[in-house]
Amino acid sequence: MVTDMLSDRPADRPNDAAQNPPTLEHRLRAIEDRLAIYNLIAGHPPSADTGAGSYAEAVYTDDGVFDRGPGLTGTTGNKAMAALLTSPGHQAAIAGGLAHFTGLPHVTIAGDDAVVISYLQILTPKKSGAEIDVPNHGSSRGYHIHRVVTNRWELKRTPSGWKIKRRTLRPVDGTEPSREILRGALGAFA
Amino acid sequence: MVTDMLSDRPADRPNDAAQNPPTLEHRLRAIEDRLAIYNLIAGHPPSADTGAGSYAEAVYTDDGVFDRGPGLTGTTGNKAMAALLTSPGHQAAIAGGLAHFTGLPHVTIAGDDAVVISYLQILTPKKSGAEIDVPNHGSSRGYHIHRVVTNRWELKRTPSGWKIKRRTLRPVDGTEPSREILRGALGAFA
Amino acid sequence: MVTDMLSDRPADRPNDAAQNPPTLEHRLRAIEDRLAIYNLIAGHPPSADTGAGSYAEAVYTDDGVFDRGPGLTGTTGNKAMAALLTSPGHQAAIAGGLAHFTGLPHVTIAGDDAVVISYLQILTPKKSGAEIDVPNHGSSRGYHIHRVVTNRWELKRTPSGWKIKRRTLRPVDGTEPSREILRGALGAFA
Repeated sequence: MVTDMLSDRPADRPNDAAQNPPTLEHRLRAIEDRLAIYNLIAGHPPSADTGAGSYAEAVYTDDGVFDRGPGLTGTTGNKAMAALLTSPGHQAAIAGGLAHFTGLPHVTIAGDDAVVISYLQILTPKKSGAEIDVPNHGSSRGYHIHRVVTNRWELKRTPSGWKIKRRTLRPVDGTEPSREILRGALGAFA
Repeated sequence: MVTDMLSDRPADRPNDAAQNPPTLEHRLRAIEDRLAIYNLIAGHPPSADTGAGSYAEAVYTDDGVFDRGPGLTGTTGNKAMAALLTSPGHQAAIAGGLAHFTGLPHVTIAGDDAVVISYLQILTPKKSGAEIDVPNHGSSRGYHIHRVVTNRWELKRTPSGWKIKRRTLRPVDGTEPSREILRGALGAFA
Repeated sequence: MVTDMLSDRPADRPNDAAQNPPTLEHRLRAIEDRLAIYNLIAGHPPSADTGAGSYAEAVYTDDGVFDRGPGLTGTTGNKAMAALLTSPGHQAAIAGGLAHFTGLPHVTIAGDDAVVISYLQILTPKKSGAEIDVPNHGSSRGYHIHRVVTNRWELKRTPSGWKIKRRTLRPVDGTEPSREILRGALGAFA
């Protein structure tokens, strides 16, 4: 358990290797799953920041849940996700300049299910304030980090690739819910 | 097409598997390509923030293009890229404290070509304002996010590794050009 | 040397291939090592921001060094690392809202050792100032980027996975030490 948590492939596992060695196909599949999941997570900011409803419809399951916690509207179902991205509110955010910025995600795969824990910043250009000049990099009022949230993505393997069955996010505000999400990356050490 | 976009290795592709299964070598090469490209993208901030001209010369093609859009100087050719990093303007930016900070990139590989779509923040220490104290983490005036840009990296395989033949970046300012870059990660759903 | 730096698997290496081709097992192991290291680096923010001492104890070596440079307390040994995360000072930072946000790391593996170079932001919610509204994304005072640091992670393979034997970080403040860390990602081009 501890070993599994710390490494995809422990450096030394004499018992496992003797009793139940992973096949080459199993190892390759685990690697390809990981890389497919990285691209799925990396595709989220481009879809959110362009309001690509058809993309969201394709990567959420029919009954996929988007849970933003109290205070912000979530939704259920891939068609409703698509509608959220193309809603007037979301389109207004895009028109003001919107960037979802994702850090390196932590990925745990177990068969046909996977859990991804990631941080995300939501950025917008500042609309007021003094411009600052940086040599060779122009002038700018800078950007406002509007939200920093922790994310738990529950994924499942489908005939058309890994899809999102539930995404839960909570703001980093010093309260427990965002930490509860982070503990999903710590396995037995949470 | 849809399946290719969503997953590096679809969970189920009976037709493909029967007609034209990828070989082990093909699968391994695709994985190694992906990881090589991650390191190429991860090497950009260290090279930009230290002004490592010889590195830039090595990773751009002879005719590589660096396109920052209207308002900022771009250049063409790996030797010119090197010169830009060692220019007085760029060195002045470094002296003030400069951090290029990259999010998780989206990577699409097709044979000997690849396209990477990524977000990048450019950060500098604030030169004025009140210091804030965070327990166990010292005092700081904080950092100014000078720019948030979307990037399209067009890469090609060469005998000495993947190289950059064109990097196009556009600022997130609510206008269309930065969104056009992001759509490069959405395949048929853009 | 140059080729090694730019690519995990050069596109063309006739001499190597003829004299000493890597085995399938060697290639798979290199890939699995890389992915294990990505998860190790991605596990750091969740552990730091929840104060997970037992996690830190598991991923640092017995004599692991945590070097934050002049001005901030570092420590030596995995048990001392755990104590730092559970200290009153660190817990106070967590209670105020704390997010370690990591960019895409650069990874170099050489046998049973690895070096990772990464950027990290430390963010906290602003405690004062005007609230800004972003359509469909609520209101917020925004976040303060308290620190931007460069990190060098020296890892080693152990029977229970890759562990941290030394982590060195330096703030981006325009001085040389943070650049010295970044050069660890540039190989012969530093």
